[in-house]
Amino acid sequence: MNKPRIVILGAGYGGLTTAVQLQKKLNVNAAHITLVNKHDYHYETTWLHETAAGTLHHDRSRFDIKDILNSSKVNFVKDTVTAIKPDEKKVELAGSTIEYDYLVIALGFEPATFGIPGIEEHAFKIGSINQARLIREHIEHQFAKYNNDPEQARLNIVVGGGGFTGIEFLGEIANRVKELCEEFDVDRSKVRLINVEAMETIMPGFDPELVDYAMKSLGSRGVEFKLGAFLKEVRKDGITIEQNGEKEDIPAMTTIWSAGVRANSLVEQSGLEHNRGKVEVTPELRAPSHEDIFVVGDCALIWNKAIDRPYPPTAQIAMQEAEVCAHNLAALIKGGELEQFQYVDRGTVCSLGEKDAMGSIFGGKKIYGWFASVMKKVVDNRALYKIGGVGLVLKKGKFNIF
Amino acid sequence: MNKPRIVILGAGYGGLTTAVQLQKKLNVNAAHITLVNKHDYHYETTWLHETAAGTLHHDRSRFDIKDILNSSKVNFVKDTVTAIKPDEKKVELAGSTIEYDYLVIALGFEPATFGIPGIEEHAFKIGSINQARLIREHIEHQFAKYNNDPEQARLNIVVGGGGFTGIEFLGEIANRVKELCEEFDVDRSKVRLINVEAMETIMPGFDPELVDYAMKSLGSRGVEFKLGAFLKEVRKDGITIEQNGEKEDIPAMTTIWSAGVRANSLVEQSGLEHNRGKVEVTPELRAPSHEDIFVVGDCALIWNKAIDRPYPPTAQIAMQEAEVCAHNLAALIKGGELEQFQYVDRGTVCSLGEKDAMGSIFGGKKIYGWFASVMKKVVDNRALYKIGGVGLVLKKGKFNIF
Repeated sequence: MNKPRIVILGAGYGGLTTAVQLQKKLNVNAAHITLVNKHDYHYETTWLHETAAGTLHHDRSRFDIKDILNSSKVNFVKDTVTAIKPDEKKVELAGSTIEYDYLVIALGFEPATFGIPGIEEHAFKIGSINQARLIREHIEHQFAKYNNDPEQARLNIVVGGGGFTGIEFLGEIANRVKELCEEFDVDRSKVRLINVEAMETIMPGFDPELVDYAMKSLGSRGVEFKLGAFLKEVRKDGITIEQNGEKEDIPAMTTIWSAGVRANSLVEQSGLEHNRGKVEVTPELRAPSHEDIFVVGDCALIWNKAIDRPYPPTAQIAMQEAEVCAHNLAALIKGGELEQFQYVDRGTVCSLGEKDAMGSIFGGKKIYGWFASVMKKVVDNRALYKIGGVGLVLKKGKFNIF
Repeated sequence: MNKPRIVILGAGYGGLTTAVQLQKKLNVNAAHITLVNKHDYHYETTWLHETAAGTLHHDRSRFDIKDILNSSKVNFVKDTVTAIKPDEKKVELAGSTIEYDYLVIALGFEPATFGIPGIEEHAFKIGSINQARLIREHIEHQFAKYNNDPEQARLNIVVGGGGFTGIEFLGEIANRVKELCEEFDVDRSKVRLINVEAMETIMPGFDPELVDYAMKSLGSRGVEFKLGAFLKEVRKDGITIEQNGEKEDIPAMTTIWSAGVRANSLVEQSGLEHNRGKVEVTPELRAPSHEDIFVVGDCALIWNKAIDRPYPPTAQIAMQEAEVCAHNLAALIKGGELEQFQYVDRGTVCSLGEKDAMGSIFGGKKIYGWFASVMKKVVDNRALYKIGGVGLVLKKGKFNIF
């Protein structure tokens, strides 16, 4: 009898956790497991704002996938997925075609631009090591150019979107500006950090007290907030916003777009039934029309009935889904009960830079400042632990808590 | 009786050495000395190729002028010279006008582009801290962009000119490529370093054995030489050369022009008699038509009768001239004999990177390799010593000889 072929697409939080859990649950002869990923490394997507700001080196935010995998159980293929063919039970990669008996789609997100002109071409996104590293270098390059060709736009950094990634990035870059100014002989008072958010608040959904805390913390470090402001256009050297019915042009050579993500568009192109690009999975995390396909992470849609909204695309949820997905795959292969996904809220902490953060833990307890920043590092280390155990935490963990 | 007013323009090797020597030779009441410079720091122009390549931080290549000056004897003015008016005995600065009884012009060089299209706009020059730092950041930015937008031109670095600065820069960047490739996940074999030189040899005037050594050393680290090749045009993303009557386009986002310098054009604009922009000074280093004006460094022309060619614009000559200039100014003020400039050749060493160099010392003895690289550091430290004594050598000197 042939071993069932499990193919996992993507080695982000969802895909890599699935692979790691499967290699624990299945023995060598139970299945043929293949993990496909564009890079030979996994990166901590939720840490990329630090890499982009230049406060955490990208090698601290990534690790080799092969170091985590048991190569006798999981075959790693470094390649780019170009198409998913559910009805043919195969996946096309840039370099080959791969067939499956069970497929796990864990291809993550891509930026949603909402058709705003110029975002595609001129705005940076914090979505990969390559992009984050480019943001760091781009900002340094603009600072280096300033004394050769003094244009204010070189020192203005705009962040479009007051959600998690945008606010966390601002916390880091606000701290780094001093170092940038020293390195490039620039007067600190000339640098502007501007957050543009269409809603009337940053961090929508967060407790107003926490939001207030974040705005004061960032404001005291020079971040300007443009709330209720719509980004109308991004150009190479500036943006246009509309606030209270009035348009304003802001010169800026650096605009970072972090106001929206959507599922990887390969999902929509696959022909699978989808809801705005995501597969609305069964409680067992399967595609409704294809029992052999599991979807986890940002490509999956699960309704949070308590508030009648979908769960947000977070690393925490992706990893919880991956555990259920791995359990169910093992059950299908070895026999056993399928589990249903049940979200366990472990709290949410938003970093505001190296030594500040805010959030809620233990089912709603609000935390601030240094303690919150320590909790944030605990959260980050926990993600490492879940994927790579103590060894990975020791190698890549964050221990700078004082 | 009024104190005579000495104004020194420029705090490079020539101007700063003049100021330092004058503050040793004259007491507080003898003269009113003013040193004017665009920046409040002096930089080691002959070290800038290292800053440009990213192998020596710019703060190691510069120091605060005020740390070197005795403020009771020399008044420092941070301003930019806009015009020299010899007949009115005054100098116009961006922010004020300053009158003098004695003037020392030590305004250094600017790049000569020989009218080659695009050099002005698209080629980088290694002429100041701001420019050198920009080159470092520009190269890193192109490497960071490569994985987001793979264009070969991002990884091609062209150096126009096989003279001192160009070759020394190539020695540094050839060493740094490995680190750049690791930092930005780029395959080393994709990077090209290209030297374009119109003559049939690099380092013209150097012993052929030394030239051969340099070419082998750089060649073994991946530098390609295009000799007898004329740079016809520089574009943002490439160059055109003509070699053996054939034109070739080479893609390159980074082109560094180091094939020629001329005196600061303020000299020509001043109305002083000049020879291709330089003042052909008397043996006492005065402008022939204006006894109250001394010219030292790259703005001065002195004929080397032994080879019937002018002395080249080097730091060594500028500093030797400055000592004569300071002696003569002191003699004019205190009384005494004027000296005539007599060049003492202390040898010339061309760096080929951290651990390699070549050159000649002790009146023609050829040196290579590690010993030459140590001698190069001795030369560099000697320049620091002459300007700022032991203290400056300890602070900014190069001691990494093993």
